[in-house]
Amino acid sequence: MSKTKTYKLSKDNVKPFNNKADYCIGTGRMGLALQQEYMKQLALVQKEIGFSYIRGHGLFADDIGIYQEYTDENGNKIAEYNFTYLDRIMDGYLELGIRPFLELGFMPAKMASGTQTVFYWRGNVTPPSSYEAWDQMVRATLEHLIERYGREEVLTWPIEVWNEPNLPGFWQKADMKEYFRLFEESFRTIKAVDSDFNVGGPAICGVEDEKWIREFLGFCRDKELKIDFVSRHHYVSELPEVDGHYAYVKLHGPDSCLETLENTRSIVDSFDEYKELGIHITEFNTSYVPNAPVHDTNYNAAYISLLLSRMGDMNESYSYWTFGDVFEEFGVPFTPFHGGFGLVANQCIPKPTFWTFKFFKNLQGDCLHRESDSIVVVDQNGKYIGVAWNLSDDERELDFAIPETDGRFCLIRKTVDEVTCNPLKTWHDLGEPRHLNQAQLDHLLASSSPLFESETISADSTGINISLSMRANAVIYFELMPAELSSDRGYSYERVKTDR
Amino acid sequence: MSKTKTYKLSKDNVKPFNNKADYCIGTGRMGLALQQEYMKQLALVQKEIGFSYIRGHGLFADDIGIYQEYTDENGNKIAEYNFTYLDRIMDGYLELGIRPFLELGFMPAKMASGTQTVFYWRGNVTPPSSYEAWDQMVRATLEHLIERYGREEVLTWPIEVWNEPNLPGFWQKADMKEYFRLFEESFRTIKAVDSDFNVGGPAICGVEDEKWIREFLGFCRDKELKIDFVSRHHYVSELPEVDGHYAYVKLHGPDSCLETLENTRSIVDSFDEYKELGIHITEFNTSYVPNAPVHDTNYNAAYISLLLSRMGDMNESYSYWTFGDVFEEFGVPFTPFHGGFGLVANQCIPKPTFWTFKFFKNLQGDCLHRESDSIVVVDQNGKYIGVAWNLSDDERELDFAIPETDGRFCLIRKTVDEVTCNPLKTWHDLGEPRHLNQAQLDHLLASSSPLFESETISADSTGINISLSMRANAVIYFELMPAELSSDRGYSYERVKTDR
Amino acid sequence: MSKTKTYKLSKDNVKPFNNKADYCIGTGRMGLALQQEYMKQLALVQKEIGFSYIRGHGLFADDIGIYQEYTDENGNKIAEYNFTYLDRIMDGYLELGIRPFLELGFMPAKMASGTQTVFYWRGNVTPPSSYEAWDQMVRATLEHLIERYGREEVLTWPIEVWNEPNLPGFWQKADMKEYFRLFEESFRTIKAVDSDFNVGGPAICGVEDEKWIREFLGFCRDKELKIDFVSRHHYVSELPEVDGHYAYVKLHGPDSCLETLENTRSIVDSFDEYKELGIHITEFNTSYVPNAPVHDTNYNAAYISLLLSRMGDMNESYSYWTFGDVFEEFGVPFTPFHGGFGLVANQCIPKPTFWTFKFFKNLQGDCLHRESDSIVVVDQNGKYIGVAWNLSDDERELDFAIPETDGRFCLIRKTVDEVTCNPLKTWHDLGEPRHLNQAQLDHLLASSSPLFESETISADSTGINISLSMRANAVIYFELMPAELSSDRGYSYERVKTDR
Amino acid sequence: MSKTKTYKLSKDNVKPFNNKADYCIGTGRMGLALQQEYMKQLALVQKEIGFSYIRGHGLFADDIGIYQEYTDENGNKIAEYNFTYLDRIMDGYLELGIRPFLELGFMPAKMASGTQTVFYWRGNVTPPSSYEAWDQMVRATLEHLIERYGREEVLTWPIEVWNEPNLPGFWQKADMKEYFRLFEESFRTIKAVDSDFNVGGPAICGVEDEKWIREFLGFCRDKELKIDFVSRHHYVSELPEVDGHYAYVKLHGPDSCLETLENTRSIVDSFDEYKELGIHITEFNTSYVPNAPVHDTNYNAAYISLLLSRMGDMNESYSYWTFGDVFEEFGVPFTPFHGGFGLVANQCIPKPTFWTFKFFKNLQGDCLHRESDSIVVVDQNGKYIGVAWNLSDDERELDFAIPETDGRFCLIRKTVDEVTCNPLKTWHDLGEPRHLNQAQLDHLLASSSPLFESETISADSTGINISLSMRANAVIYFELMPAELSSDRGYSYERVKTDR
Repeated sequence: MSKTKTYKLSKDNVKPFNNKADYCIGTGRMGLALQQEYMKQLALVQKEIGFSYIRGHGLFADDIGIYQEYTDENGNKIAEYNFTYLDRIMDGYLELGIRPFLELGFMPAKMASGTQTVFYWRGNVTPPSSYEAWDQMVRATLEHLIERYGREEVLTWPIEVWNEPNLPGFWQKADMKEYFRLFEESFRTIKAVDSDFNVGGPAICGVEDEKWIREFLGFCRDKELKIDFVSRHHYVSELPEVDGHYAYVKLHGPDSCLETLENTRSIVDSFDEYKELGIHITEFNTSYVPNAPVHDTNYNAAYISLLLSRMGDMNESYSYWTFGDVFEEFGVPFTPFHGGFGLVANQCIPKPTFWTFKFFKNLQGDCLHRESDSIVVVDQNGKYIGVAWNLSDDERELDFAIPETDGRFCLIRKTVDEVTCNPLKTWHDLGEPRHLNQAQLDHLLASSSPLFESETISADSTGINISLSMRANAVIYFELMPAELSSDRGYSYERVKTDR
Repeated sequence: MSKTKTYKLSKDNVKPFNNKADYCIGTGRMGLALQQEYMKQLALVQKEIGFSYIRGHGLFADDIGIYQEYTDENGNKIAEYNFTYLDRIMDGYLELGIRPFLELGFMPAKMASGTQTVFYWRGNVTPPSSYEAWDQMVRATLEHLIERYGREEVLTWPIEVWNEPNLPGFWQKADMKEYFRLFEESFRTIKAVDSDFNVGGPAICGVEDEKWIREFLGFCRDKELKIDFVSRHHYVSELPEVDGHYAYVKLHGPDSCLETLENTRSIVDSFDEYKELGIHITEFNTSYVPNAPVHDTNYNAAYISLLLSRMGDMNESYSYWTFGDVFEEFGVPFTPFHGGFGLVANQCIPKPTFWTFKFFKNLQGDCLHRESDSIVVVDQNGKYIGVAWNLSDDERELDFAIPETDGRFCLIRKTVDEVTCNPLKTWHDLGEPRHLNQAQLDHLLASSSPLFESETISADSTGINISLSMRANAVIYFELMPAELSSDRGYSYERVKTDR
Repeated sequence: MSKTKTYKLSKDNVKPFNNKADYCIGTGRMGLALQQEYMKQLALVQKEIGFSYIRGHGLFADDIGIYQEYTDENGNKIAEYNFTYLDRIMDGYLELGIRPFLELGFMPAKMASGTQTVFYWRGNVTPPSSYEAWDQMVRATLEHLIERYGREEVLTWPIEVWNEPNLPGFWQKADMKEYFRLFEESFRTIKAVDSDFNVGGPAICGVEDEKWIREFLGFCRDKELKIDFVSRHHYVSELPEVDGHYAYVKLHGPDSCLETLENTRSIVDSFDEYKELGIHITEFNTSYVPNAPVHDTNYNAAYISLLLSRMGDMNESYSYWTFGDVFEEFGVPFTPFHGGFGLVANQCIPKPTFWTFKFFKNLQGDCLHRESDSIVVVDQNGKYIGVAWNLSDDERELDFAIPETDGRFCLIRKTVDEVTCNPLKTWHDLGEPRHLNQAQLDHLLASSSPLFESETISADSTGINISLSMRANAVIYFELMPAELSSDRGYSYERVKTDR
Repeated sequence: MSKTKTYKLSKDNVKPFNNKADYCIGTGRMGLALQQEYMKQLALVQKEIGFSYIRGHGLFADDIGIYQEYTDENGNKIAEYNFTYLDRIMDGYLELGIRPFLELGFMPAKMASGTQTVFYWRGNVTPPSSYEAWDQMVRATLEHLIERYGREEVLTWPIEVWNEPNLPGFWQKADMKEYFRLFEESFRTIKAVDSDFNVGGPAICGVEDEKWIREFLGFCRDKELKIDFVSRHHYVSELPEVDGHYAYVKLHGPDSCLETLENTRSIVDSFDEYKELGIHITEFNTSYVPNAPVHDTNYNAAYISLLLSRMGDMNESYSYWTFGDVFEEFGVPFTPFHGGFGLVANQCIPKPTFWTFKFFKNLQGDCLHRESDSIVVVDQNGKYIGVAWNLSDDERELDFAIPETDGRFCLIRKTVDEVTCNPLKTWHDLGEPRHLNQAQLDHLLASSSPLFESETISADSTGINISLSMRANAVIYFELMPAELSSDRGYSYERVKTDR
């Protein structure tokens, strides 16, 4: 039996809602942007959702190959820079209407002080053997980008220094002092190229995060580094349990899912110099491993709905990790549905969470309602736009009392739940094939669209009631828009329906 | 309360089923094939369904402009032929993988003996002022086509003489004797170009049809014309009732919907010379007017399902009239949903009947079951493919007992009914807008896909039962295919669903 | 033996040059914009050249079908408007980045006071039977456009009343007084919809043009119509001589080719109220018939170069008639090269004049040189861009002394002449085929690109000399741009060339 | 002063000419086929030329990731295979109408017996640590391909074992005995999967080639391996001289450029068991390094013309190394023109040699003439098709006396030489930019098309003379085809040209 909740909306009661669902999106290492399948998935995401920025690792990784050395006639090592692939990648992004949110890292093998690497693709995570070489590479890269794309354009690209230096897997020994040095060197180099660049850090994740934020801001303050933003990551899962190629995770309860973000906000605001400074969550998702099947589920879509409704409260942006499943951190995936981070599975199959983003993108207008299970805005044309989600395993019913007492309206609804839009289940029903033939792919594409429904509603003095029946893990999008009937001469829909 | 019917299938009991759903499709006058919107709709239809032939009026109409005349220095009228548009049209068809089923007509104004025209686009329906001129034009056209496209190709294009000569609107006074002359002249001319052309007629519709068929065959027999096929049209509606721009029609009861076709078959078979000669139904639909809203409904989709399941019993092919809504017989339509014949509404919105054809196209295999409400085949991979329809206004339940007692199967279902796939209703809910903005178009496209569902079925000794709940006017497609589970190492769908 | 002329350029000597080559382009009747081939040609033109506006006849012609009537229950004729095709056409234009320059005309048959028509496609050229009906249609159309495309957008679309009313073929009896009435009615109607619309006329051509301009402006002044622009047409050919399907014309000598335009400018400026009022040349070309083979020649390209270099002197814009060869005024063309107006022949083959427009489009910068055979600008990056043309039948040599005394430069040249870029000749060499097969089309496309050449030039104290050898009817485009050599480590072009 | 040579052709004198120019083409390592730029270049090559097969290294390299291992609960290493990327690559090839010519290699790191690698991308070149593991991987891969693409399809893919085992850089120590073991194991494994696979080797290059061929065939004979073909490589350059990133090479004189191939043919034919066995040249080019600027030159195009005219004499096929410049053996290229092997430079700029292949592809018909500087065929429609090349640094004139004495003909010519089609020169003129902006790219594309010319020729009793003026390193293509004039009524090309 389903429980019913009723929400009464009023146009006099506008709520705060900072919607940055479409600001930034994550990507597997940037070198993968050379791939065709990657670009197809990104093109789909940009066409249907449209993000402003994209952020990923590996700008200085060896597969892009920016940093090169040769030995001159005197036996000296001389640096030279190769921007062939960098340009190809950036050209590709800009053609799709998305800009890079630059992350400086990891270390080119030839410049590295050590051999520690991370991931299947072996990103070197040791400090530079020479900070001068690092600074020169950063400068050369930025100057090249400005030359190619223009100063005005490139200055809109934020710059973050390194990734998750608080984790020893991503920065040798998680050496805080060394990271601060890297940050300061990078910061001063970037600002010397152009002081209008927006630069921030420390891009930390999880472990000892409060300490890192506090010390980082203290360091910047002491060094008089006028940073432009603070950045961190946000995942809401416990340690994964691994079986074969896959990782199973428990997620934090929804009630506590924002605590760390609130703490970070408080810490930043506790510094006079950095009060109200913008915080970019440069990665977030439920689980932080790319083989967690939860990413492919309707549950994930519902959970992310909750996060999208809230994360703007304390952050300037929040970047879902990642747009697609061309991603190699743990190696090449064995199957189409392998628990990758992507909004889109390989072969361009939208996962349920894809729709969460598409729905939130549309939430443009004055927010009249925001609760733990739903949000509604009204735009300047009088259209109500809402998203509701059901994080529980039970059916729920949500009713919205809409303050319209006159006129004809059209209500449209799009339902993403385990019955109506669940490609993972269809893939399972098909036998979990590792390699899709065309018929299987067609079925999966057919199973990955929301159910669309429409109805006519005539408002009367009691107002309009929108009632949503929500199955477990459902995400439902709706629009209620004025729709006066303008029938053409002689057209009668009633007669069409009955007169046969 | 819904009624339940159960059908028990056996692989030992293969039924006859002559599936020609994808053989031929109708089109508005061929000159419209120059239009971009027309070609977009045809491209969609070809990609999703894929017909072999396309048939329409107006090959010799003035907008294509084949027949021209000039006056020479002696004051004589000289014929000349302009194939510029003809080639453009044929090139366009062949690029989309569809061939013309040629219909010779109507009369170029300059060659006509009178001024009577049909339709908004004024097709002249009078006999030629000179049969010699007509014959020369036919010959020149066929010779040109052979020169451009090759004999082997062009000989695969059937040729039909004129359209509905038994109706005085389409052939002056419905003059039977004059038509027979036109037929004989055309037939002999075509066969003189190449005796391997397939030529037929009389392409009649409705009024006095039995008499026409009988007299036509008698005429051909007497003249020793070895015709290659007989053709006629088939509509199942009463006279329309007109209101403003629209026509409302009653359809014949499903039980009697094939009578005229059976009669025609009998008449043809009654001639020794033409026994078992192929009959092409070169037009069929529910209503015969292009402003009958019934064409846009789910009811139409269900009715056409019945026809597609039966019309192969007595005919070599049957061509739905028409593929799209770029069509001008009664003028330019005022709204997107105006009761046009098309499988696709303007702006490439599939109507419910579109899916009927897509579903029937897939019915390839041995037919195990064919009743008035459903049909099932099984293919060589052991996949069962079925279509069911509910022509009533009540809900129905259909059960199929499938003779499989072992193994894991996947059942997929696609439901087209008034709730799940009803763009006409959505358009009405939106207020029946005459001109769609992008948001409205997006809603209509979202409302025009079937609901897709899948499930896992484990066969046991009792066999498999497929149970379909059918709302009024539903058309449901299903596939039941073997789908052994091949889970990747460590992947457990059960755990994905429960372990959070 | 070729003659040599030398031009010495100086950066201190900037010349006036009002380059509106890309402002507006003509089109066959707007209903043709529904056609696929038309849109392909327009897409090519927009991609390679890119015009801002497009102007053509037939907005109110019956094939677009805006004006409709029905009889109500009382037997009264009631007007209704059908914007289905209008929207499709405008959507198509806007998708290609081009806006309509609206021409109000011709008369819907149902509204017309007479039966006189113009062209193969039968545009009715008689006054309305009711000016009230005309005004209502104009108003309804503009209001619909504003509703669909937004006021801001639609106000950028200029509006011209009728076409060539001074010719009795285009306006019954060339009745001036009746035209003035039509103009006044239309003007007041449009301004009542929105006073910010730009409205003008009288769109005359040739015969008695000075009288018409004078009387028109006098009328407007007397009626206090604050018109926004004056419009007229400009063709530079004598009466054509007709043979079969084709028309052969003599063109006016280049020296006198601008006289009528100068006269019009003087007349307009002679009115205090209209001094310096903008004049739009809403049509121009060499010949005014669509079957004049001269349009397909290199001679045409050279002649149009001269016009493009001069027509901005007295006019606000000038619109070449037309962008493509989908055009039906004299019927359907029999062959690919039939002397149509288009920049592009059917099947998207650029004619020589296409390149004239592409070249002039690039003339952005300060004009340093403008003579009867050439023009040169320099842009802000120090790039010199020039076009030269040779209207004679002899070879010529043109030298430009460029005031650069230092650095390495790259000169690129694109040559369009009878040897290097002459698809008409290739088509003739191929035997003048009426219907192109793929191989013939490939040859024609290969023959329709300019010859490209580049060279390295090192400036020294004597400056740079650019020397152009020009065959008869050549149009040559060049760019001279700074190009310092930045060879990669180890790369030596000299060694590449010699070391084998 | 240019020398003139005259060739007299006769239809009675048909020459042997085995044209396999379009049989197979090389590619950088197959993992690069995941890249978008790679696929764009391949799509261009397939559209314009169209090869049947593609061959490259790295099928088993770690970036495709087929071979994986995990440790089971008992601590045993277990093999597992990942075909995700393999399928994506093969799908991509087949969509472009090209099939793989499979090369088995190199060694997955996890299966390798050593650590020696080749290239920037580190292909492991050591024998397997377990031949059983190798055999299982080969079998699993072929069985997977058959399952996915069908037996009929996959059996058309030839299979070659390893690459250049006679070079110690490609096969540890160039250990012949070890290679023979690898070959035998692979051969027997493949034939066990399906005895209809075509399998061959030894894919050697250069050093000690005759010995290797002889010993290989002896080994196969002794072991009773019924190999389906012999394979080897063919480069015609001396050792390169390196400067910075580039390698400068001398090429062998044209006279001796086929010696090694003739020797190989003789050796194979000297074995009774292998007499007339097909030889596939699975790689050929001028230089064998991917940074030799000669590849980008017109000289290369002329040299390859000679090779294409001859290599079919002793070989079943010959595969140019490579189709495009997405290639990483020596690292990421620094500039667009870096001496890569490709027919196409990055950003899809055709190099001169691209046209050599396009021209040879068209040489279909009876060969009437084949000399060291030219070749001519005649097809069944009476069209003469020829290619001529000038490998010298002087101008040459070639005349062909064509035995046609009657009728009107069209001659078309396409000239690729240092003036008309030389993007390398244009890139140099532009300053050798490392990163192209759009204007530079447009110039390079404009500079990479042959000059097209056409003319009308009337045959008379003296026959037709075709005269080609050939600049240094020119490659000229021509067609002479019957082209009777079919002028439309009233059309006179003479009048068009003169009557202005």
